[in-house]
Amino acid sequence: MIKSAIVGATGYTGSELVSILLRHPEVEISLITSNSRAGEKFSDIHPQFLGFCDLELQKADVIDDYDIDVCILALPHRVSMDFVKKWKDKPFKIIDLSGDFRLSNAKTYEAWYNKEHVIPEMVPTVPYGLPEINRENIKGAKVVANPGCYPTTSILGLAPLFQAGKVEKDSIVIDAKSGTTGAGVKASATTHFSNVNDNFKAYGLKTHRHTVEIEENLGSLNGGEVMVQFTPHLLPVDRGILATSYARPTGKMTNKELMDLYKNYYKDEPYVRVRESAPELKFVRGTNMCDIYPTYDERTNRIIVLSVIDNLIKGAAGQAVQNMNIMLGLKETLGLEVSPIKP
Amino acid sequence: MIKSAIVGATGYTGSELVSILLRHPEVEISLITSNSRAGEKFSDIHPQFLGFCDLELQKADVIDDYDIDVCILALPHRVSMDFVKKWKDKPFKIIDLSGDFRLSNAKTYEAWYNKEHVIPEMVPTVPYGLPEINRENIKGAKVVANPGCYPTTSILGLAPLFQAGKVEKDSIVIDAKSGTTGAGVKASATTHFSNVNDNFKAYGLKTHRHTVEIEENLGSLNGGEVMVQFTPHLLPVDRGILATSYARPTGKMTNKELMDLYKNYYKDEPYVRVRESAPELKFVRGTNMCDIYPTYDERTNRIIVLSVIDNLIKGAAGQAVQNMNIMLGLKETLGLEVSPIKP
Amino acid sequence: MIKSAIVGATGYTGSELVSILLRHPEVEISLITSNSRAGEKFSDIHPQFLGFCDLELQKADVIDDYDIDVCILALPHRVSMDFVKKWKDKPFKIIDLSGDFRLSNAKTYEAWYNKEHVIPEMVPTVPYGLPEINRENIKGAKVVANPGCYPTTSILGLAPLFQAGKVEKDSIVIDAKSGTTGAGVKASATTHFSNVNDNFKAYGLKTHRHTVEIEENLGSLNGGEVMVQFTPHLLPVDRGILATSYARPTGKMTNKELMDLYKNYYKDEPYVRVRESAPELKFVRGTNMCDIYPTYDERTNRIIVLSVIDNLIKGAAGQAVQNMNIMLGLKETLGLEVSPIKP
Amino acid sequence: MIKSAIVGATGYTGSELVSILLRHPEVEISLITSNSRAGEKFSDIHPQFLGFCDLELQKADVIDDYDIDVCILALPHRVSMDFVKKWKDKPFKIIDLSGDFRLSNAKTYEAWYNKEHVIPEMVPTVPYGLPEINRENIKGAKVVANPGCYPTTSILGLAPLFQAGKVEKDSIVIDAKSGTTGAGVKASATTHFSNVNDNFKAYGLKTHRHTVEIEENLGSLNGGEVMVQFTPHLLPVDRGILATSYARPTGKMTNKELMDLYKNYYKDEPYVRVRESAPELKFVRGTNMCDIYPTYDERTNRIIVLSVIDNLIKGAAGQAVQNMNIMLGLKETLGLEVSPIKP
Repeated sequence: MIKSAIVGATGYTGSELVSILLRHPEVEISLITSNSRAGEKFSDIHPQFLGFCDLELQKADVIDDYDIDVCILALPHRVSMDFVKKWKDKPFKIIDLSGDFRLSNAKTYEAWYNKEHVIPEMVPTVPYGLPEINRENIKGAKVVANPGCYPTTSILGLAPLFQAGKVEKDSIVIDAKSGTTGAGVKASATTHFSNVNDNFKAYGLKTHRHTVEIEENLGSLNGGEVMVQFTPHLLPVDRGILATSYARPTGKMTNKELMDLYKNYYKDEPYVRVRESAPELKFVRGTNMCDIYPTYDERTNRIIVLSVIDNLIKGAAGQAVQNMNIMLGLKETLGLEVSPIKP
Repeated sequence: MIKSAIVGATGYTGSELVSILLRHPEVEISLITSNSRAGEKFSDIHPQFLGFCDLELQKADVIDDYDIDVCILALPHRVSMDFVKKWKDKPFKIIDLSGDFRLSNAKTYEAWYNKEHVIPEMVPTVPYGLPEINRENIKGAKVVANPGCYPTTSILGLAPLFQAGKVEKDSIVIDAKSGTTGAGVKASATTHFSNVNDNFKAYGLKTHRHTVEIEENLGSLNGGEVMVQFTPHLLPVDRGILATSYARPTGKMTNKELMDLYKNYYKDEPYVRVRESAPELKFVRGTNMCDIYPTYDERTNRIIVLSVIDNLIKGAAGQAVQNMNIMLGLKETLGLEVSPIKP
Repeated sequence: MIKSAIVGATGYTGSELVSILLRHPEVEISLITSNSRAGEKFSDIHPQFLGFCDLELQKADVIDDYDIDVCILALPHRVSMDFVKKWKDKPFKIIDLSGDFRLSNAKTYEAWYNKEHVIPEMVPTVPYGLPEINRENIKGAKVVANPGCYPTTSILGLAPLFQAGKVEKDSIVIDAKSGTTGAGVKASATTHFSNVNDNFKAYGLKTHRHTVEIEENLGSLNGGEVMVQFTPHLLPVDRGILATSYARPTGKMTNKELMDLYKNYYKDEPYVRVRESAPELKFVRGTNMCDIYPTYDERTNRIIVLSVIDNLIKGAAGQAVQNMNIMLGLKETLGLEVSPIKP
Repeated sequence: MIKSAIVGATGYTGSELVSILLRHPEVEISLITSNSRAGEKFSDIHPQFLGFCDLELQKADVIDDYDIDVCILALPHRVSMDFVKKWKDKPFKIIDLSGDFRLSNAKTYEAWYNKEHVIPEMVPTVPYGLPEINRENIKGAKVVANPGCYPTTSILGLAPLFQAGKVEKDSIVIDAKSGTTGAGVKASATTHFSNVNDNFKAYGLKTHRHTVEIEENLGSLNGGEVMVQFTPHLLPVDRGILATSYARPTGKMTNKELMDLYKNYYKDEPYVRVRESAPELKFVRGTNMCDIYPTYDERTNRIIVLSVIDNLIKGAAGQAVQNMNIMLGLKETLGLEVSPIKP
C-alpha cells in the first residue's frame, strides 16, 4: 500500500480526506496530524468516525518517522507555505489545499493575500491542480496546488468557451452561491445557525481572492488577460456550490453549437457531466462530480452556464485525491467512485 | 371602518393579507372567500389564526351583500381576470395580485401567459402598482395591478439608474434567488422538502414571465426599450428574494455618485432603505421593506446592486395594502409598521 | 407614555423586546444599554432595525438620568443579580429575564447554578412571572422573575393536571425540543450551522437547570414535591419549543374529562389556546401564544400533552412584556396582539 | 456475480438500494422495475445517477427473463404482499421492505393495516429481518421482512434491557423524531417545504403502526407482552431518526451496569456502536450504523436510551442489503463499509 499523511486533520477537508482514503484500494492513511490537538484520537474530534478511523493525531514534525509517499496539506492559507518550504526536498509528493501556490507568481499572491510569500521563487513552478485543464503538468509534479472551490466550479463552467475563443473576455459575470462549509469548521458569527438558516446574502463583493485565481486560469486557456465579475453568496446549506455564469459570445452562437462544444471538450472526463437541463446541488453531493449545463439565450445574445460541485469534494478533498492518483500514476478515479447522496 | 374583502384566502398571500389587515386601524376584514372551501373557517385552513380570525369562508359571489369598499384578489393568474371583468363596475376598488393586468397590453400578456385575455381593452388602463415609481397613477385608480415579487425586487433595485439614464440598456443581468413560498401553498415535487432542503437550483432560464414585467417597467422610466437577462433560483428558505443585478454605466461612475443617486431617489420612500453594505433576507423578513445596496466596481467598470424583499409582503400582500392605502387616501404605512422578524 | 429601559440589548431577547415595545401603545423605549458596546447604535448591532430603532446604546449606570418607570433586565445568569442588588430600591419596577430569582430559595439556586447568590434573602420574595399560574402575585410586585423558556412550555402543558391532582407525581417525562436561539446570540460549536443543519441531538440529560424550575412550580400547584424527567433536544430551527409530556393519571381518566379540564383551566387566558389536535411550532411563531393539546391513551393509560411556544416571545421577551403590563396595571395584551408568522 | 432485482425503484428506498449495490463487490443489479414508469431510464427519474446507473426501468413481470438470485421489494404496504404471493415459489430469495410480513400473524396485521392479508398463512413463517436480534432465522430464510425505520431504532435501543429482563414492561415511553424521507418521495402537504422548514410537530399519537412492531419484537426477547408509548415527530431534516426512550429498571441499576450490559450485548455487532455520550443524526448519516447511548438517572430512577439511525439505510435499504448478505452467506458488511457523511 502507498502511505499517505494528512496534515491538518481537524477541519472539514481533513475529515473528508479520511472518508475518501478509507475507501481507497491502494493508498492507506499512515499519519494524521494536528499540532493543536496532537494526542487526541481522530474519532474524538470527528465522532462520526468512531470505529472507522481511531488513529491518534500526531504533531506534524513526526512525518520523517513514517516513510510517507504522499502528503496532503489541509492547512490554512499563509500557514501551508511554511510546511512546503520545510518539506519540499523530502522524498514524498505534496498536494497543498491552501491558496499559497495557486497563483502564477508571488507578487500577485502578496497583492491578494496580504502576506509576504516565504518561497516566492517556487510559486511559478507549482502546477495548478485542476486535472481537466492541466492534467499533463500534474502528472510529473512533486508539489501540486489544489484549486479553490469557487474557481473549480467557475473555471470548469467556462473553460470550453475560453479554450475555443468563443467569449468576449470582459463580459464574464459569475454569480456564485456556496454552502457554509466553505467557511470552515470554526464557529463564527458568519456561520452561527440563526444567521444562516432561512437567510441568504452576498459577501466579498469585488474583492474575493478567488477572483484572481479564476482570471489567471481562464486567461491561460487562450493566452489573454481576463477580468471577471465574481460575486459569492452564502446559502443555508452544508455543502455545494452553484455558479451561474453569464458571457457574451464573440460571434454567432447557437444552442446546438454550444452544447456540442461542451460535450466534446469534456467527453473523456470522468468527473464532468454535461447535462441537458439545470443541475442541482444534490445531483453531485458526496461526489467528485462537476455537473454543467450551458445554454444560449438567442433573445439577449448571452450564454448562461450553470455549474455545480460539492465544495468539500471536487472543491477540496476529492480533487486532492484525484490529483494524488494522477501524481502517483494510479487510476484517476480510485477512492472516488461513490454515487451522490440524494436526498 | 373601511370594509375589505379578500378573495381567494387559502393561499399564502391570503393569509398574509389577513395578518396585515388584522393590524390595520382603519380597515376591517368583512369578507373572506374561497370557492373551493366555502363553509370552512379560515382558522381551520390556517390553524395559526385560531382566535385571531375565525371567519367563515364564503363563495365569492356573496360580495354584493357586504357593502365592500375595497376588494383584494389573491387568485391565480388567468382566473383573476374573470373576477375583474365581472366586478369592474362595482362600487368597490380592486387590487389584483395576479399577473393578469401587470403588462402594458393584452398582446404581450398573451405571448407570455399563453392565454387569451378576457378584457384586453382594460389591460393598458390599469396602473402598475409599484408606489415608488407610479404613486400618482395609483392614487386615483379603480383597479390596480399589484406587481410580481421578482419584478418588485428587480425594478426597485435598478430604477434610480434607469430614471437617471445611467446604464447601458442591454447590459443588465439580474440573478435572483427566491424562497419557496413564491411557488405557492400547493404541494408539488418542486416544493417537496427533500428536493429543496440542503439544495439549490436555477429554474425558468430565459423564459420566466417576470422578465417582461421587469423590462416594461424599467423601460418606462426613460422611454426606451430594455432587455434584461433574468435568472431565478430556488432557495431553501420560506420567504425572501435577493436579486443581484449587474449593469454597465453609460459614462463615468464613482461609488459616491452611485450612492448619492440612490439615496436621493428613495429619500422620501417609507419602504426602501438604501444601505451602505450588503443586506440579508432576514433584514426585511416580515416587513414591507426593500433594502438596497448599490456599489460600483472600478476594476471591472460594473455596477452591482443587491436588493431584498420579503416576497409575501413587499412582493405581494404588503404592497397590496400599501396600494390600498394610497387608493383610499389613507396614510401609506397603516398596517405595515411592524419591524423585521430576525432571527 | 410610560418609560422603559432595556438593559442588555445585544442579544436575541433584547432585540425581541425592542420589536414588541415599538408596537406598545403606552410604553416607550427610553434607554437601551450594553456595557460592552455602549456608543454604538442599536441598528448597527441589529441591522434589521435601521429606521425602526436607531437609539444609541448606553452604559447601564446612566439609568438614573432617564426617569425610568420599568426596567427589563436581559442579562446572563449570575450577572443579573448584581443589577437587581444595585437597583432594588430605585423607583422603577424590574423584570429580570435571567434565572437568578426564579427558584424558591438561594440554596437551591446555588446547587443548580454553581454560584453564590449576592442577595440570598431576596430570592424567596420575588414572584415567579408565569401569569397563568401566578398573576395575583405579579400584580403588586416590585421585581418579577421571568420564567425560563422550557419551564414556560412544560409548566403550562402540565399545570391543569397538577392543579387538579390528576397525575402520579413521579410519572412525569418531559421530552422537549428547542430551536437554537435558546442558546443565545453568541457563536459556538453548538450553534455552528453545519453542526445543527440537517441534524438533531439531545443534550443536558439528567442535569439541565430548568428541571428544578419545572419541579418547583408544578409542586407549588398542589403542595407536594415533584420530580420530573426532563430531556432537552436541539432542533435545526431558529425559534420555537415543543414539549411532549407523558404522565400517569391518578385515577380513571377519559379524553373528554381531560379536554374539559384543560379548556376550563385556561378559559380566560389570552395566551393559551387549548387545541383539538397536535400543534406545530409555526402555529405560535412570532407570538406570545402557548398552544396545548392534551390527549389520553386508553390503551396504555397514559396522558400525553403537547405544548408549544415561541421561545423568544412567550419564553422570554413577550412574557416579560405581559408581566410588565400586569405590574403596571395595563391591559395585559398591549404590544402582544400580532398574529403568527407562518410560513 | 450474484444477480439482484430491485422491484419498485422510483422511491427513496429504491435509489438508496442502487447506491449501495453499485458498491457491492459480489452482487450486481440486473433488473430495476417500476410498473408506472417502465421504459424510462433510472437516471431520468433520479438524475443524480447519470453515468452511475442508466438502466431502463422494466415492468416487474419480466423478472423470469433475468435469472435473478435475489429480489428486493421496495413497494408500498398492501401492494408488496401481492408480489410475494406471486413469486414465493420462484428460485430467488426475497427481501420485502414493506410492513406486510413484519408482524407475527395476519390477524394483527389486519387490525393495524386495515387490509385483509392475501397470504395469511405465510405471515408467521417470515422472519423479522433485524440481524442483531434474529440473525439465525434470517440465515436460512427464503423470504425476510425488513423492519420499519422507527422499530429498528427503538428495538435496537431497548433490546439489551428486555433480553436481560431489566425493565418494567409497562414503563416504556419512546419519543421518536424522524426526517421527512420517512414519508416517501411523493409530494404532499405533510412534506411541503414551508410546512416542514423551521417547523416541528408530533403526529400519529397513540395509533402509529410501528407501535405494534416494536411491542411484538421487544416482547419476543423475553417471552412476555409489552406495551409501549410510541410518539413520532417530524423533523425538518432529510434523513435520520433519533429515539429517546425512557424505562424504569426492575431492580437496582447503576450507570456502569447499564453500560456494561449494552457493550456486551452488542460487542460483535458491526452496525451498532454503543457510545459514552449523546449521538447526533449526522454521526450515522449515509451509513448502516445504529449509535446508542444508554444512561441511568439515579435521581429519578429511570433509564434513558438515545438511539439514532439513518432511516433510509439502517432503517430500509442498508438493512435490506445486510439481510441479503446474511441470506446469501456473504460477508455481512459487503457494500456497507462507507463512513458517515458529516457535515
